[in-house]
Amino acid sequence: MIKEKFGSRIKELRMQANLSQEKFALMIDMDRTYLASVENGRRNISLENIYKIANGFHITLEELFKDMK
Amino acid sequence: MIKEKFGSRIKELRMQANLSQEKFALMIDMDRTYLASVENGRRNISLENIYKIANGFHITLEELFKDMK
Repeated sequence: MIKEKFGSRIKELRMQANLSQEKFALMIDMDRTYLASVENGRRNISLENIYKIANGFHITLEELFKDMK
Repeated sequence: MIKEKFGSRIKELRMQANLSQEKFALMIDMDRTYLASVENGRRNISLENIYKIANGFHITLEELFKDMK
């Protein structure tokens, strides 16, 4: 499922950046519980929120979706 | 705005594939008027619908977002 794959990718990038859910959510002005549900693959997240996350990691959308099948 | 950029990209890919909105919408089981509003940058489209579009073009999400700033 794409929602699960996306959630795993976000979690992976967040861990690589050494950021807690709390800290990253604060950085990108997103509710912490919403971010948690995205990471758990439970959200059909919208383009604008996907973009917000990419910006938070300082990467492009292309990089965000890299190798995601 | 990211919604506009995304819409332009979808339209570009659809034209490259030489498909009408009607035909592409039918191929991916999406309402034609919904697809039109996505292409016009008026929709905050969800991950599952983005994925449906990528699959319709037989490309990865990474390719779909290629060079999109």
